[in-house]
Amino acid sequence: MADYIQLDTGKVIGFCEKVFQTYGFSADESRIISDVLIRADLYGIESHGVQRLIRYHKEIKSGMVDPAAKSKIVHETGISAVIEANKAMGQLMGVSSMKIAMQKARASGCGMVTVRNSNHYGIAGYYTNMAAKEDLIGICMTNTEAIAVPTFSSKAMIGTNPIALAMPADPVIFSYDASTTVVPRGKLEVYNKMDKPMPDNWALDAKGSPSSNAGEVLANIINKAGGGIAPLGGVGDLHGGHKGYGLGAIVDIFTAVISCGLTSNHVNVTPGHTGICHYFMAIDYGIFGDKAAIKTGLSKFLKELRESKKAEGQERVYTHGEKETEMMAARIKGQIPINSKTLSEMKDIADIQGVSWDLC
Amino acid sequence: MADYIQLDTGKVIGFCEKVFQTYGFSADESRIISDVLIRADLYGIESHGVQRLIRYHKEIKSGMVDPAAKSKIVHETGISAVIEANKAMGQLMGVSSMKIAMQKARASGCGMVTVRNSNHYGIAGYYTNMAAKEDLIGICMTNTEAIAVPTFSSKAMIGTNPIALAMPADPVIFSYDASTTVVPRGKLEVYNKMDKPMPDNWALDAKGSPSSNAGEVLANIINKAGGGIAPLGGVGDLHGGHKGYGLGAIVDIFTAVISCGLTSNHVNVTPGHTGICHYFMAIDYGIFGDKAAIKTGLSKFLKELRESKKAEGQERVYTHGEKETEMMAARIKGQIPINSKTLSEMKDIADIQGVSWDLC
Repeated sequence: MADYIQLDTGKVIGFCEKVFQTYGFSADESRIISDVLIRADLYGIESHGVQRLIRYHKEIKSGMVDPAAKSKIVHETGISAVIEANKAMGQLMGVSSMKIAMQKARASGCGMVTVRNSNHYGIAGYYTNMAAKEDLIGICMTNTEAIAVPTFSSKAMIGTNPIALAMPADPVIFSYDASTTVVPRGKLEVYNKMDKPMPDNWALDAKGSPSSNAGEVLANIINKAGGGIAPLGGVGDLHGGHKGYGLGAIVDIFTAVISCGLTSNHVNVTPGHTGICHYFMAIDYGIFGDKAAIKTGLSKFLKELRESKKAEGQERVYTHGEKETEMMAARIKGQIPINSKTLSEMKDIADIQGVSWDLC
Repeated sequence: MADYIQLDTGKVIGFCEKVFQTYGFSADESRIISDVLIRADLYGIESHGVQRLIRYHKEIKSGMVDPAAKSKIVHETGISAVIEANKAMGQLMGVSSMKIAMQKARASGCGMVTVRNSNHYGIAGYYTNMAAKEDLIGICMTNTEAIAVPTFSSKAMIGTNPIALAMPADPVIFSYDASTTVVPRGKLEVYNKMDKPMPDNWALDAKGSPSSNAGEVLANIINKAGGGIAPLGGVGDLHGGHKGYGLGAIVDIFTAVISCGLTSNHVNVTPGHTGICHYFMAIDYGIFGDKAAIKTGLSKFLKELRESKKAEGQERVYTHGEKETEMMAARIKGQIPINSKTLSEMKDIADIQGVSWDLC
C-alpha cells in the first residue's frame, strides 16, 4: 500500500490555487475549485481530493474542460433554472448553480437547478452543505460515465450517480452523500492493487455474471467490453439490485433528462467531451412551519439513531455526516495526509505548469 | 404454498367498496380506498392488495384508523402544505394530499405536501402515478413502524420507508416504487413458511449479527427483542448498507421531521395510534423547458436501457413500471388471483360486517 506524507493543509490549498491559475482560471475561480477539492481530503474522502488533480490537469489540457467557458441560463422560472455549462469546470458550475438554487429557495421556498454539458464536480456533499450552512435543505445529484449495469443486463448504462442531501441539525449536520452503486470504481482499484478477490455481488463480468476479479472487471470497463459495477443492492434482484438500478435512473432523470443533456450512457463517449449533467435543489424548510421546531425534531431523531443499541462488536452507530465533520475539525487547522503517488503527480504538475514547489 | 382462486376484478372491487361502507366511510371514500387496494393486485403486488383487508379491518375496529376523521391543513404556502391527518385512513390522505400537491404544481411549478398522524396507505406508486397521468412528475414517501436496523446498530429504528417516483414516458411510464430495505417483511414471512434459510445479508438477529433464520427474526420483530431487516445494501457497510440506512433516514426527514410528526422509531408504539407520516410532491416539468422534448428524452433513455445487452441466461432488461403496466393491462378487464387464505379472511369479514357474499 502507498505511503502517506502529512502536509500543511493551508499550503496544499495555496499550491492548488496557483496551479489552477496557470490554466487560465481567475484567482477567485481557482480558490473555489481548490476549496471543493481539498474539502474532500478534509472530510477523509481521499478518492475525490487532491489525488484527482492529475485527472483535472489532463481534462483541461485535452480540452474536455474549458477554463474560458461561459455558462448560460437557457430556461428559468421563479423556482427553476436550466443551465448550459458549455464544458465549464464542474466545481464552478456546482458552486454557482447551488447559489442560484439557494437564492430561489430564499425568495420562493425552493429552487431547482439542472445543468447540462458540465464536467466532474468533486464531492456532491460540498454543495448540499453550502445550503445547510445557510439553514436550508440542500439536495444534489450528478450523472457520470456509465459504469453500473442495469439488473439483468450485461452492459454498463448508468453512472455511479450519487445522491446527496444535507439538512442542519445540532450538534452535527445530517449530510448524506453516496453513489447509487454498491461501491465506487476506486474500491475495485484497491482490490486490484492488493490482488485480492472482491466480495461477490459487487461487479459483473462481460457476460453479466457476478465476478470477483477486480483486474478483469476494470479492464473490461476501460475497453467498454461489457460488465461493470452492480447497482446498490448487488447483482440481480435477490438483494434489491433493481432498487439501486432505479435510483441511478432517477438521478439521470433530474440531471440529464430534464436538462435535455446527455444521460450516463452517452457521457464521455464523444472524444474531448464529457457532457456530465448535475442537479441542485435548495428548500427553505420554513415553508413547512417553525424552523426551530423542525430542526429540533431532526436533532432528536439523529440522537436516537446514534444512541440506539450497538451491534455486538461495534463501537459506534453513526449518522451521516458525523465522520466527515469530525475529520474536518481535526484537519482544517493542521495537516492532511497525501499519498506519495499523488505527491509525485503534484510535483510533475508543478514542473509542467511552472509553479514553485514549497510543499515539502 | 397457498392455493389461488381467480376472481372477477370488478366483483372484488365491488365487494371491498361494500365492506368499507359498513365501517362508516362514504360511497366515494370507499371507492377510493378500494381502488388503491385493488390497484396493488392489478400491478401484481399481492402483499399490498386485498390480502391486507383483514389488517385494515382490525385497524379500524381497534380505533387506530378513524373513519370519521377530519384532516386539517395546519400550514400552507403556494408550494407547500402540512396536513394533520387526525388518524384518517391512509389511502384517503394519499389521494387528497397528492391532489393538493398536483394543484400547487399546476399553479406554481411544484407542490410539496407532508402529512402527519396518518395510517398505512398501500402502494406509494398509486399516488405518484396519479401525477404522471396528468403529465407531472410525482414523488411519494412514507415512513412505517421501525423494522430496519441502522448500520452497526442492533435495534430496528427506521421503517421500510419506501420511495416512489413516476414520470410519463412512451410507450410506458417510468414508475419506481421500492422500500429502502433489502427486502420487505413479507419476504421473511415467505421464507419462514417454507422453513428455508434466508440469504445472508437480509436480516439481523437480536445482537445485530447477520441471521438466516426467518422465524427467529420475525419473532424478535414482533416482540421488539432486537434485530430486524437490513437496510438496502445489507448488514454492515461492506455492500453499502450505510447507503440504504441513509436513504431510510431521508424518508423520515420528508415525512416525519418536516411535518413535526412521529419518526419511524416512534410509529406504532402508543397503543391504538400508528402516527405514520407521508410526503407527496408533484413537479410540472415544464418549469425546465419544452415538455414534449423532455418526455421524448426520457422515452429514449428508457428504450436504451431496455435494449441494452442482456446478461447471459436473462430474457429481458426491464425499466421500472413496465411489469406493473403489463400486469394491469392483463388483469383490469379480467380476473385477479386471490390466495385461499385471503379469500377465507374476506368471507369472515363479510360475515362480521353483514355484507352479502357473491364472489365465488
